[in-house]
Amino acid sequence: MHQAAEVICVGSELLLGQVLNTNAQFLAQALAQLGMPHYFQTVVGDNPSRIHQALDVACARSGVLILTGGLGPTADDLTHETLADYFHVPLVEDPQLWLALQELFTRRGRIPSPTQRKQCQLPQGADVLPNPWGTAVGICWEARPGLHILTFPGVPSEMTAMWQATAVPYLRQLGWGQTVFLSELLRFWGVGEANLAEAAAHLLDNPNPTVAPYALRGEVQLRVTASAQTEAAARILMAPVIDELIGLGGDSYFGGTEASLARVVGELLRAKGQSVAVAESCTGGLLGQLLSAIPGSSDYFGGGVIAYANAVKISLLAVDPQTLDSEGAVSTMVAQQMAQGIRQQLNSDWGIAITGVAGPGGGTIDKPVGLVYIALAGADYQACQVYRFGQTQSREMIRWLSAHSALDQLRRRLK
Amino acid sequence: MHQAAEVICVGSELLLGQVLNTNAQFLAQALAQLGMPHYFQTVVGDNPSRIHQALDVACARSGVLILTGGLGPTADDLTHETLADYFHVPLVEDPQLWLALQELFTRRGRIPSPTQRKQCQLPQGADVLPNPWGTAVGICWEARPGLHILTFPGVPSEMTAMWQATAVPYLRQLGWGQTVFLSELLRFWGVGEANLAEAAAHLLDNPNPTVAPYALRGEVQLRVTASAQTEAAARILMAPVIDELIGLGGDSYFGGTEASLARVVGELLRAKGQSVAVAESCTGGLLGQLLSAIPGSSDYFGGGVIAYANAVKISLLAVDPQTLDSEGAVSTMVAQQMAQGIRQQLNSDWGIAITGVAGPGGGTIDKPVGLVYIALAGADYQACQVYRFGQTQSREMIRWLSAHSALDQLRRRLK
Repeated sequence: MHQAAEVICVGSELLLGQVLNTNAQFLAQALAQLGMPHYFQTVVGDNPSRIHQALDVACARSGVLILTGGLGPTADDLTHETLADYFHVPLVEDPQLWLALQELFTRRGRIPSPTQRKQCQLPQGADVLPNPWGTAVGICWEARPGLHILTFPGVPSEMTAMWQATAVPYLRQLGWGQTVFLSELLRFWGVGEANLAEAAAHLLDNPNPTVAPYALRGEVQLRVTASAQTEAAARILMAPVIDELIGLGGDSYFGGTEASLARVVGELLRAKGQSVAVAESCTGGLLGQLLSAIPGSSDYFGGGVIAYANAVKISLLAVDPQTLDSEGAVSTMVAQQMAQGIRQQLNSDWGIAITGVAGPGGGTIDKPVGLVYIALAGADYQACQVYRFGQTQSREMIRWLSAHSALDQLRRRLK
Repeated sequence: MHQAAEVICVGSELLLGQVLNTNAQFLAQALAQLGMPHYFQTVVGDNPSRIHQALDVACARSGVLILTGGLGPTADDLTHETLADYFHVPLVEDPQLWLALQELFTRRGRIPSPTQRKQCQLPQGADVLPNPWGTAVGICWEARPGLHILTFPGVPSEMTAMWQATAVPYLRQLGWGQTVFLSELLRFWGVGEANLAEAAAHLLDNPNPTVAPYALRGEVQLRVTASAQTEAAARILMAPVIDELIGLGGDSYFGGTEASLARVVGELLRAKGQSVAVAESCTGGLLGQLLSAIPGSSDYFGGGVIAYANAVKISLLAVDPQTLDSEGAVSTMVAQQMAQGIRQQLNSDWGIAITGVAGPGGGTIDKPVGLVYIALAGADYQACQVYRFGQTQSREMIRWLSAHSALDQLRRRLK
């Protein structure tokens, strides 16, 4: 029982509901991957006496305590102070941390305040869990024989990065993570969750590997998880199931755990030595942002035009004013002219154009909110697809689905 | 102390990380609105002995326990059984519930199974908390004098609907929700959390209204929360504190709970009848996306150019090739030419340009990752600011900070 891990999330903002506790879910998944039993999670405010109460309860039943939050520079960040107090050790300043903090501030032309210096003080005997992404470091500490404590800042990006970089090796050293849990996500675009789940129904009750479907903002995912003595054995269990699921998905399958439509499109373009440019009306830059979010995307993405106003469609994309007049900005012909126009302007192999009604206003009976035209133009290729994402979708979701459908159109063409 | 409410979420799927615990956030907000103190949340699996442990801890410190999950028809749904066992009362079938369940199934042409019938069995003495949206009912129950227990299904839509429809009236009857809690968020950009918190230090210990700082991706927030007999009285308490905090923030204050930099900039432009266009290099469309995410933004945002490649900076923004050669793309002069260029191309009042090194590659000693130039050009205005966001920041964060700093530059100019 005392071998179990327990999560304690510290933060009054959680108890006020100002913040959704995504850290708890991340840690739950991470502990499951390491095969660590995990029976309780607690949320407690930035209050020393109540943190003491939570520690009383947790120390009596668990061998590894994982605390998040309360490591920042403000007066209500009290996790390390409270731990030191609870285990009757002094707080000690780590000279290396203090030096690094001063150097960091010097580079930014600032001076650390006394409260910022507090972040360099750790319970005596604790080791630093370094935080390369911020000034709040965590600790790993055997506070009592057999009782291990790990702390992380509450900022999710810092917490998750520190978990992978430093906590996982520490816990493996303690003997955890010897049974391998391997999980692979299969990603699909352009297929319904129910359809894919029905096609894969015979695999959804499989004990090992398990297969679980999930739908997320237009994308459908299947998670395949195997447990085994070694990673190689887990891969052998997964391989035939993954092959079968990819076959069931057909062209809608676009990649695994690390894939995104923008990344896959980028790899296909790079492999072919081709380039793409974008002309965006209703998405206002989202497609360019997705393409350029990939490091190294300048190899195949030169840029584009955000043609939000019709005047820009005419002046920078050479869209015919008469077509705009007769067909309207949201039309097949305008989308095609935009795609051709940006392809020529930027001298790229492919031009993608998006024009549509993102709402909430601007919809008509003929052209309702959610109607989007996406055109793709190549050297000897021209196509336009029409999408009806639905009038009840939010502006943000219509833009999201539009940009990703555009990427998917190009992906299917490049394949 | 025993007047506090405590949340216990039951469900092994939470401890495996398969489900994000949105119920905990909803209940936290709901309790805050009712003015119920709430110091602890616990997550526990579908396991009777561990639910017993959680009840031991919670009953000793809280007067209202709110449990979610474990009310369904399957064998691992054990919340009501475990509560009956814990408080030494039998489970009793509610004849009306059983009748209603049979009728429901008859209408669907089905017959309830024994496990479905189990959902009609409640701890003796408990009242039904009806569930009009599903078959899993909850209970409200004074299990011991002064100890109230409410249970809800784990399905968020059912839980939240039942909370509003039946739990809130029950808790008001117990005397809760007589006090009004009012909360306002003050938003700042361009100031450090620690600096603002230090300036406002004398207010951070204020009992009513309370003031709590929070930092989130470059933005600093101060949450001001007052409790009073009426909303008007709460507003009167908050007003001088809000005024003082806004004064302390100076120009870095940009708005309240509903504000965003893109929204504020849009309102300022609309009020002045002015327009803006963007020229984006390293942000690749993010700034345009933020501006165009606001409904109605076509009134003041015409579009722009994603000048990711230098060739596009030259052809569409009229950047001087010699300047690109001598200064490099990441420089004050190129940023200024980009801003002037887009302003002229789109015939807009303002042009904003962003050029920088988003990383992770492409950094040099002179021009490291995180170095970003942001230029703003107007009819008789020209300025460029240089930012050093730090080499350890992610590409995504550098782009985020760049686009928001650009909005902030325009906001300060328009003010």
